[in-house]
Amino acid sequence: MIRYEDIGRQVREAEYAVRGPIVARAQELERQGRKVIYCNIGNPQSLGQKPITWVRQVIALVEYPELIERAPAGTFPEDVVATARHILASSYGPGAYTESKGYRFVREAVAEYIHARDGISSDPEAIFLTDGASKGVQAALRLLIAGERDGIMIPIPQYPLYSATITLYGGALVPYHLLENAQWKLSREVLEKAYEAARARDIRPRAVCVINPGNPTGGVLDERNVEMVIDFARERGLSVLADEVYQANVWLAGDRFVSFASVLERKKVRDVSLFSFHSVSKGFLGECGHRGGYLECRNVPGPVLDEITKLQSISLCANSVGQLATYLLVRPPRRGEPSFPLYEKERSEVLETLRTKAQIVERGLNAVPGIQCNRVAGAMYAFPKIQLPPGVTDDDYCLALLEETGICVVPGSGFGQDPGTAHFRTTILPPMSEIEAVVKRIAEFHVAFTRRKGA
Amino acid sequence: MIRYEDIGRQVREAEYAVRGPIVARAQELERQGRKVIYCNIGNPQSLGQKPITWVRQVIALVEYPELIERAPAGTFPEDVVATARHILASSYGPGAYTESKGYRFVREAVAEYIHARDGISSDPEAIFLTDGASKGVQAALRLLIAGERDGIMIPIPQYPLYSATITLYGGALVPYHLLENAQWKLSREVLEKAYEAARARDIRPRAVCVINPGNPTGGVLDERNVEMVIDFARERGLSVLADEVYQANVWLAGDRFVSFASVLERKKVRDVSLFSFHSVSKGFLGECGHRGGYLECRNVPGPVLDEITKLQSISLCANSVGQLATYLLVRPPRRGEPSFPLYEKERSEVLETLRTKAQIVERGLNAVPGIQCNRVAGAMYAFPKIQLPPGVTDDDYCLALLEETGICVVPGSGFGQDPGTAHFRTTILPPMSEIEAVVKRIAEFHVAFTRRKGA
Repeated sequence: MIRYEDIGRQVREAEYAVRGPIVARAQELERQGRKVIYCNIGNPQSLGQKPITWVRQVIALVEYPELIERAPAGTFPEDVVATARHILASSYGPGAYTESKGYRFVREAVAEYIHARDGISSDPEAIFLTDGASKGVQAALRLLIAGERDGIMIPIPQYPLYSATITLYGGALVPYHLLENAQWKLSREVLEKAYEAARARDIRPRAVCVINPGNPTGGVLDERNVEMVIDFARERGLSVLADEVYQANVWLAGDRFVSFASVLERKKVRDVSLFSFHSVSKGFLGECGHRGGYLECRNVPGPVLDEITKLQSISLCANSVGQLATYLLVRPPRRGEPSFPLYEKERSEVLETLRTKAQIVERGLNAVPGIQCNRVAGAMYAFPKIQLPPGVTDDDYCLALLEETGICVVPGSGFGQDPGTAHFRTTILPPMSEIEAVVKRIAEFHVAFTRRKGA
Repeated sequence: MIRYEDIGRQVREAEYAVRGPIVARAQELERQGRKVIYCNIGNPQSLGQKPITWVRQVIALVEYPELIERAPAGTFPEDVVATARHILASSYGPGAYTESKGYRFVREAVAEYIHARDGISSDPEAIFLTDGASKGVQAALRLLIAGERDGIMIPIPQYPLYSATITLYGGALVPYHLLENAQWKLSREVLEKAYEAARARDIRPRAVCVINPGNPTGGVLDERNVEMVIDFARERGLSVLADEVYQANVWLAGDRFVSFASVLERKKVRDVSLFSFHSVSKGFLGECGHRGGYLECRNVPGPVLDEITKLQSISLCANSVGQLATYLLVRPPRRGEPSFPLYEKERSEVLETLRTKAQIVERGLNAVPGIQCNRVAGAMYAFPKIQLPPGVTDDDYCLALLEETGICVVPGSGFGQDPGTAHFRTTILPPMSEIEAVVKRIAEFHVAFTRRKGA
């Protein structure tokens, strides 16, 4: 019989707080009849965000093509029908395995999307369609980690997919600390310090990972920051992992998303390998359950690309519907096409609502004595710093918040934070009708909890 | 820049022949305008097998629920609508992340399916919904391989998911050779010999893996065989991995599928951990692209189950539509429900066609001098032994077959075979209109090729 003790250390030590013990407790409370508001995970449709009609209409037709003939005229706009027909003509339908890399026509569409976004060319053969961005990140890390001395530089705070996967693959975490006092920006100095500390431990950093816009921080990098990371990577001989799944989630007028690919090409850098990731789960689609995404590689030699293909092939291919959702993300209705007006309306409603909620959360939290929240400039999270009485951890805090209010957030310890500080991550996703109340309950809880524990 | 030489040995050494170099060459030929018949992979819908209407209708409604109101009466049978409504009421819809283990209502349905199939109880909390069976197999192997001395006993020939994953996870392959002369059955003697050989290499076998019905062999185990494996595992302190994805694909009247779970329970074995796998990709659904499946655990301690949940959680969850396809597999229309007649008709047509094709392939190959093919008793493959002139490998043979006929099969070397023998694996999936011609072309090729090379 298999015993817990027999399981490898790497598996046992991997941690993933976003779905950890506090979430397990939340599910238990829910089964007991308590109402829980899940602010632990960026799962928009579970909190009432509506899917984009364009995406769902096309998928429904591809799944059941008889509808093309059987549905009454007007049920499906012409461009939806044409897109479904194109997908069916370009594939064996969603029931067949796709190429290991993913449908070729979708990879071509991704390349066109990157071209339209950044004005740079992109090679469909260096694009891999993945089950969400997570699997793309894992594929890149699998290649970069050959042994326990191979280090991956990750931001602190970070999204725990990175720490969990690096632990699982037996590599070394090389943390670099984002500057909370500078809106979570990063600096060359911070990167150098982390690099040197790793070298002193006899770790060989292999890659630097950047999440932009930031999860859990909500920070957005500017072009100079992106350029600085690329310069650093080039001088230190590192690859870059660019987690850009929140590229459509930039909230402040002064900010804009700058892709690593665009800066790499503008600077004509040919000696830094770039792995960048995108997903259908975030942005305005919020199609988390469909597990769609892509990995784009630049300056990655052919034999290394072949290894990624091989890794993909071992479990055959990414799921077909996720690949199609990725297609519908990168190839939306165009102005003048019949689906365009509704698509635009839904898209801007989702984004404007999120923008408003980002402000409500940021302002509401900052109004609480003992809570300090940086700008929620991008992504779907706030990561406020909380002042706690001595001896109280952010784990204690988040558990008490859950028990007393039903609000489920994740302790800062799950993402990493500067020693001696405490934080939590909350999403900005509760519905407009509830978000003010959620923030108010957190505020009231904070005051009561810190008073009680501090006494 | 990342270099091929920097990639870990485990990644570089993992091999997956089903999608290896011969398939790459086939795709190249296809791009040049040649017609290729892909017999390399069990991908029924790519060769014209129709999806089951029930599955696709429900998924279409779940993806675009407005159709429930908008489609004209009669487009969707009542039970399809009711099932879609049930799914939507039991979840946040397919756009939201599910629980890490998978939708609870689907896991409950899987438990009921196992109960109905075997008359034994099953615990939904020990069931994990996975992206195809592959990911379930990988989760179990991840737990069982803690270091390079941990061995996994796999059949030879085997499905290369196993060898590739064991290599990737840094474990040791412990091959046991199925008896080609006894219709690919296995014997206690064969298992013991393999076990002892591993111990002599200082390998500690942790689990024995069985594929039943067999891939690539087409063999079907009887109850005595299953019982023997369980006895062996118990005496040797091993876990059992039971790959049962072809459980609906049993072709001969004298055979029937016997699950490991049923024998474990009948014998009241409590000290052998069993991991069994099922999939929506095979059987009569053939929904490969949707990547749905499940892993059921028995006699696995709670803390070990928690580790599987954690591994699943790192990439959030299996894709939602694959989970729903699994639901529709285990909870089909029942007699008296409106979808039942069509479902039954489609199901039996697919299975009867496959049964006929299994015979056509087996007989056709056996009629060729120099080809010997065991009974295609189950699954979707034939794995004939071929007599080759000295110095000619099955790789050479399969490449020449592809170049000369456009038929793409996989060399026996990709699955493992007794030294000095040569085989290939072909699926039985080409359409009825083509299957006789495919077998005839293989026969003609074989005669011409061996004559030419032998001369």
